[in-house]
Amino acid sequence: MNTKPKILITNDDGIYSDGIYALWEALSELGDVSVVAPSTEKSAAGHAITINNILKVKNVRRQGGFKGWAVSGTPADCTKMAVKEILDFKPDLLVSGINRGSNLGNNIIYSGTVSAATEGAILNIPSIAISLDSHVVDSWENSKEAAKDIAKHVLKNDLPKGTLLNVNVPSCSPDNLKGIKVTQQGAQYFKDEFEQRINPSKGTYYWMKGEIVDTDTSLEFDGRAVAENYISVTPIHFNLTDKSFLEDLKGQFDG
Amino acid sequence: MNTKPKILITNDDGIYSDGIYALWEALSELGDVSVVAPSTEKSAAGHAITINNILKVKNVRRQGGFKGWAVSGTPADCTKMAVKEILDFKPDLLVSGINRGSNLGNNIIYSGTVSAATEGAILNIPSIAISLDSHVVDSWENSKEAAKDIAKHVLKNDLPKGTLLNVNVPSCSPDNLKGIKVTQQGAQYFKDEFEQRINPSKGTYYWMKGEIVDTDTSLEFDGRAVAENYISVTPIHFNLTDKSFLEDLKGQFDG
Repeated sequence: MNTKPKILITNDDGIYSDGIYALWEALSELGDVSVVAPSTEKSAAGHAITINNILKVKNVRRQGGFKGWAVSGTPADCTKMAVKEILDFKPDLLVSGINRGSNLGNNIIYSGTVSAATEGAILNIPSIAISLDSHVVDSWENSKEAAKDIAKHVLKNDLPKGTLLNVNVPSCSPDNLKGIKVTQQGAQYFKDEFEQRINPSKGTYYWMKGEIVDTDTSLEFDGRAVAENYISVTPIHFNLTDKSFLEDLKGQFDG
Repeated sequence: MNTKPKILITNDDGIYSDGIYALWEALSELGDVSVVAPSTEKSAAGHAITINNILKVKNVRRQGGFKGWAVSGTPADCTKMAVKEILDFKPDLLVSGINRGSNLGNNIIYSGTVSAATEGAILNIPSIAISLDSHVVDSWENSKEAAKDIAKHVLKNDLPKGTLLNVNVPSCSPDNLKGIKVTQQGAQYFKDEFEQRINPSKGTYYWMKGEIVDTDTSLEFDGRAVAENYISVTPIHFNLTDKSFLEDLKGQFDG
C-alpha cells in the first residue's frame, strides 16, 4: 500500500532554478513529488494569469532524477494547469519555492511564489510558499529543513480552507537559526523609485529600483522575525475585505 | 484660487480603451484629471510589477482633449510611475477603470484594475477601482455616474490608510439601478479549465477558459449585490494575515 503523500511543487524563479531543485530534494524524502513550474523566471508576476494568450507545456529533466513539466505561463497558471490538466490526481500538499529573496510584509502582493500557493489554497489544496531571505545563496540547507518540517506539519495538521502559509527563512548559518515564529504580515515594503536612462538612439527609458524598508520592531511581524534569525510562518488568505471599516462605510452610505 | 481636486486615473484595459475615456469624461467634471495608463491591454495582470525589464513612457492624445501618458508596464507600474516620476504633485484621489467586466469575489486577486488602485492605497492616496459588469458595453452612463458619486464621497470623507474601495456597477438600464450597497468580498470565482488544441505543426497548446460561479445568496456580498442591480462598494486592504487562524497556529507550533 502506497501511503506516501503526493506533493506538487512549483515556483516563480522557473523550473531550471536552484531553489526548486533544492525543494525537490527536500520534499522527495517526504513523498512523491510532481514538479510543474514556469519555463522561465516570473519574479514579481503577482497573481497574473494568462487569459489572452496560449499556454504550452513541455517535459523537463534535470540531473539526479528531477523531472517535471515546464509551463509557458505565470506561477498561478502553473498551479491551475497542474491540478486541472497535467496531474491525474489531486495533490495532498502544494509547496511553492524555494524563492531566492524574501516575500515579507506588503511585498507579498507582488510575489509569484505566494500567488502559486494562493492558487493552491483556492483549489482546496493545503499550500505553502517558502522563500529564502537572500539573493546570493550560499546554502539551501536551512530552507530545505524548514520546507520539510513545515510540510510535515501541514500534512499532519492540515490548514483551514482558504488559508495558506507564507514561510520565510533567514540566511544565517544553521547554528544561529532560532526556530519557528508564527507571525503577522508586517509593514515591510519596497521603497521604489525610477532611474531614467537614455538609450543609444537618445530615447528615454526607466528602471524600477529601490530598497526594502522595514519599520516593525516586534517579533510579532514577519520581517522582524526573519531579521532576528527566526523562520517566519504567516497564515494568509485571499479575502481582502477590510472588515474593520465595513460598518463605518455602511453608515456613511446609509446615513 | 484653484481648489479643484487633482485626480489620477489609470486602468488595465489600456489608455486607448473606451472605459478610461468614459472615466476621464466623468471625473473631468469634478477636478483636474491626469491619465497614466498601460500602453496596451493588461487584463488579469494581477499585482505584477516590472523589475526585470525597462519601462517606457509616451504622450498620448485622444479626441475631446483627452491626453495622458502611456506606460509600457503593468497597471501597478503605472500608478508607481505616475506618482514617483511623471506627476510633479501627489494626487488627491486615484481612480482605476472603468474596467470592461466585473471584479468580484475571489476574482479580484487577478485584477489589474484593482492592483492599480491597491498601489495607490500603498502610496497613501485615497483610491477606487471601478468595473462594469459586462464585456459587451452598451452604455457607460451608470458607471460614469457611479464613478462621480463615489469619487465625490471619497474626496469628502477620505478613506482609512491602507484601505481602498472596489466598486462594481451592474449593466442594467439606469431606471433599474437600485443604488449603492456596501458589501464584503464574496465567494464568486472563475471555474476554469484548459482547452487543448493542436497547432498547424501538430504541437499541443492550451487556452484557459471557464465560467463565473457565484454561490452567495445574501446582498451582503459583492457578486449578489451586482446581480440584483446594486452598485457594489467593497472596502478592501492588502493585509493578507488570516487573523482568525493566527492564535491557533501559534498554539500548534508552541505546543
